[in-house]
Amino acid sequence: MANLGEVHPRPSPALSYDHKCATKTSLSSRLKSTPARLCIRACCTNDSFQPQRSSFTFSGDNSSTRGWRVMGTLLGLGAVLACHDQQCRASQESPRRYTREEVKSHSSPETGVWVTLGCEVFDITEFVDIHPGGASKLMLAAGGPLEPFWALYAVHNQPHVREILAQYKIGELSPDDKAPSILKTSDPYADDPIRHSALKVNTQRPFNAEPPPELLTENYITPNPIFFTRNHLPVPNVDPDTYRLNVVGPPGGQSLCLSLDDLYQFPKHEITVTLQCAGNRRSEMTQFKEVRGLEWSLGAISTARWAGARLCDVLAQAGYQLCETEAHVCFEGLDSDPTGTAYGASIPLARAMDPEAEVLLAYEMNGQPLPRDHGFPVRVVVPGVVGARHVKWLGKVSVEPEESFSHWQRRDYKGFSPSVDWDTVDFDSAPSIQELPIQSAITQPKEGETIGSGEVTVKGYAWSGGGRAVVRVDVSLDGGLTWQVAELEGEEQRARKAWAWRLWHLQAPLPAGIKELNIVCKAVDESYNVQPDTVAPIWNLRGVLNNAWHRVHVHVTP
Amino acid sequence: MANLGEVHPRPSPALSYDHKCATKTSLSSRLKSTPARLCIRACCTNDSFQPQRSSFTFSGDNSSTRGWRVMGTLLGLGAVLACHDQQCRASQESPRRYTREEVKSHSSPETGVWVTLGCEVFDITEFVDIHPGGASKLMLAAGGPLEPFWALYAVHNQPHVREILAQYKIGELSPDDKAPSILKTSDPYADDPIRHSALKVNTQRPFNAEPPPELLTENYITPNPIFFTRNHLPVPNVDPDTYRLNVVGPPGGQSLCLSLDDLYQFPKHEITVTLQCAGNRRSEMTQFKEVRGLEWSLGAISTARWAGARLCDVLAQAGYQLCETEAHVCFEGLDSDPTGTAYGASIPLARAMDPEAEVLLAYEMNGQPLPRDHGFPVRVVVPGVVGARHVKWLGKVSVEPEESFSHWQRRDYKGFSPSVDWDTVDFDSAPSIQELPIQSAITQPKEGETIGSGEVTVKGYAWSGGGRAVVRVDVSLDGGLTWQVAELEGEEQRARKAWAWRLWHLQAPLPAGIKELNIVCKAVDESYNVQPDTVAPIWNLRGVLNNAWHRVHVHVTP
Repeated sequence: MANLGEVHPRPSPALSYDHKCATKTSLSSRLKSTPARLCIRACCTNDSFQPQRSSFTFSGDNSSTRGWRVMGTLLGLGAVLACHDQQCRASQESPRRYTREEVKSHSSPETGVWVTLGCEVFDITEFVDIHPGGASKLMLAAGGPLEPFWALYAVHNQPHVREILAQYKIGELSPDDKAPSILKTSDPYADDPIRHSALKVNTQRPFNAEPPPELLTENYITPNPIFFTRNHLPVPNVDPDTYRLNVVGPPGGQSLCLSLDDLYQFPKHEITVTLQCAGNRRSEMTQFKEVRGLEWSLGAISTARWAGARLCDVLAQAGYQLCETEAHVCFEGLDSDPTGTAYGASIPLARAMDPEAEVLLAYEMNGQPLPRDHGFPVRVVVPGVVGARHVKWLGKVSVEPEESFSHWQRRDYKGFSPSVDWDTVDFDSAPSIQELPIQSAITQPKEGETIGSGEVTVKGYAWSGGGRAVVRVDVSLDGGLTWQVAELEGEEQRARKAWAWRLWHLQAPLPAGIKELNIVCKAVDESYNVQPDTVAPIWNLRGVLNNAWHRVHVHVTP
Repeated sequence: MANLGEVHPRPSPALSYDHKCATKTSLSSRLKSTPARLCIRACCTNDSFQPQRSSFTFSGDNSSTRGWRVMGTLLGLGAVLACHDQQCRASQESPRRYTREEVKSHSSPETGVWVTLGCEVFDITEFVDIHPGGASKLMLAAGGPLEPFWALYAVHNQPHVREILAQYKIGELSPDDKAPSILKTSDPYADDPIRHSALKVNTQRPFNAEPPPELLTENYITPNPIFFTRNHLPVPNVDPDTYRLNVVGPPGGQSLCLSLDDLYQFPKHEITVTLQCAGNRRSEMTQFKEVRGLEWSLGAISTARWAGARLCDVLAQAGYQLCETEAHVCFEGLDSDPTGTAYGASIPLARAMDPEAEVLLAYEMNGQPLPRDHGFPVRVVVPGVVGARHVKWLGKVSVEPEESFSHWQRRDYKGFSPSVDWDTVDFDSAPSIQELPIQSAITQPKEGETIGSGEVTVKGYAWSGGGRAVVRVDVSLDGGLTWQVAELEGEEQRARKAWAWRLWHLQAPLPAGIKELNIVCKAVDESYNVQPDTVAPIWNLRGVLNNAWHRVHVHVTP
């Protein structure tokens, strides 16, 4: 990272930070940004500086930088007086040097929160509360290096994350102190299973991958090796012989400690269920406007035949009954982060206790023991509900008056208005995603493909949450002006218990001489819910819940 | 109606019929149109005729009528030979005369189906199967006058219905036979109750009316006198003392014959439920393309506090249990047509038997006995489900292996692709509407209104079917480019049991100098279902299920 002492114009970390502060100040009372802003104004008095973000204007004057210079000079003196070391993120001279001991002494909100990456030192005090992964996760790294955590959460290794971090740089480690002070951590993902090469990998660590469209709808049942995989942490290696599921009993009931053999004693229940990640089709949202999340194409959805014990049977054995007051069944996985915090999620007790909802503690997937990537030896399967609640490597089940306190229940997997950004988001204001809305997508032909003239065959999938059957798929070849009804494949779905997708196809003649097709699909479920026409009005900062019409543009050979 | 013998150009019934035949021939194999088409070509050889429908072209030559005359002359001879009396709908001479006896002898598919209206005679044989109200209803009038039926179903008194009928004219009644052969029927609606003058009336017979937008969201609970009214037939006048509800028991169970006092013996259950007609907001669909149905604005929705016996309790008393096989609870009203056929509808047994679904046999509406227009003394209330299943003046309940055979269950209240028209519609291909999709609308300001500058207050309602709570309403002032989150009024809704609407408002400052607003609203429910952007892609021939974004354009005073 270059020093601010350089004189060629370039995007200023200080400016970026000021911009961020200004936004934050107006939108969030949590941050005390005034001293920082003064400091940054002072930094901006350097004449070589020119603002480069055209969207960032000052006093309504965006045609020249004169206003900046004048204001900078006027504010300069007072600002410099107010500028404390730890608040001034960048210096005009050579970088400030800190020892690891000094960094370590800044590991709380009171002292300020510092971290290192390589030889650079960052004061991230003000960022802690707006860390997308949650404040508690970030505080694990307070006073020390980020590397061990970024090794675990590889999502951080992206330019935009480094850009955010750069805004908080306050200096560098003392040259004597630059030698790595920690042992190189062993790769926590070293024990992950080997995967099928057909999978399109989004991230390796944790492993997130989807089947390619051309394989996705080849079979109604997705073969295990290409079933989409959404991992949040390294895959635990569970010994089936010593595995125990801990079911916390109610007051007056009994806690259960179930081995696999114990689970097999419950009636075996088998159902076909489609799982979909809330981020499926996120990449289309990104095309409209950047979001934070894995770049799923349309393959973060798959279907399997699951078998296991019904959760309602297990809860009944522990002594639970459906109660009038709201309650939630909380699940914890055996996958955990360095503090021992497990992946977790919850569903309402009413769904868990409803035999018709068919929530499973599944130990079989398509007639096989669960593959490790899909939760061996036991995972939750919650038909009609977002994938994030189907907790894998299930270790613990409990019933609580509130939803799971897991980051993934409370600070992720929620939908927001397009107007909400990371400065204004209030995660408590939105319900956690449970049932998903009606969805469909085209798997053939592919975007940009050239197809033969005469006739086109369009294929795809359609699915709705909450057990709502797909009743119709409309396909347009002209961008949505006219529609044809696709043929739904397979058997009719059970009303209110349509847990799995419908595959569909349309074979349609093409007018002679047509050069391109704008293929669109949209589905309707039994509650006559439909998909929205476009992505922009459902855009949200996490890029979840994209169920806008799916569009594919293809060329036709003359 | 003018004779074809007149020589001035005008739209030809024969041409219209040919046009219709051509469409029908290509789309439906039910109709044998070849002879009729030949006949009509012959009719078109009249030199004075000029086609007036610009959309109807012949041999690609629409710039002159010469092609018509030549083709007409060429086809004339053979055509005339093939033209039988009963197939030739219009003659070039004075109209054919028929006696009432002759008309009466044409009352079956074998003899042909004739009807009269005023002094005109129509052969509607080919129309019977495509009658929007169903073939059986139309056959009631076979061989006789339409007037008694049109008095009951006043929807027929519209220009487009008379236009369709005109295409089937074959002649007129003999002058001696023109005196009305039936006694003037007394008005079947004479005993309907008196209604509140604030209601916006769509049809008087049967009575269909909605509250104006400015009253609709004044109260969370809609006052009884302005609750929207959807009647299909005259309002029965039921004596509460002699009223009996017939509940047909299962094999081995017992049939019940319940007086009002008997019903009062069941535990009284009270819930707030919003009812919405499937045709709510149909008028916006009509603006895109004509549909058949009542021209509801946005007021075919209202909310009341209902009290009554739970249907599951009554069914349990009759000996019913939830069974694995599919079954339906069929309801019949005491309102009936001249053949004694009652209004009817059904819901799945699973919903009826589920205590959590809270289906009521309601005898109170907002603390009062049901008003006559709303089903006195007993109606069904099916929370989260389309209004058409909330059968009023309930007379009979039975459990059947199939849905109700009622016209309104099987041949109406279903959704179709925009590509489906009255020639191609297959009512069996679509599920009957039960749960409705997410809906919202703006009740203030009104379309075309001029509002003051400085600030705008937008108000409206939002509701979703199936008990899905409304979690957010987004409002745009710029046609959907940017959005603000509206404030939801009242208490949080119960998850999965949110039977009633949320009212909402947004108060927003207006930029100085703005001259107009394109206000849009869209809601999100707890399954994160959203409303589609536009009407056209969800247009359907009956104009039901319009839940596209609601849009209001207003002017701002300078």
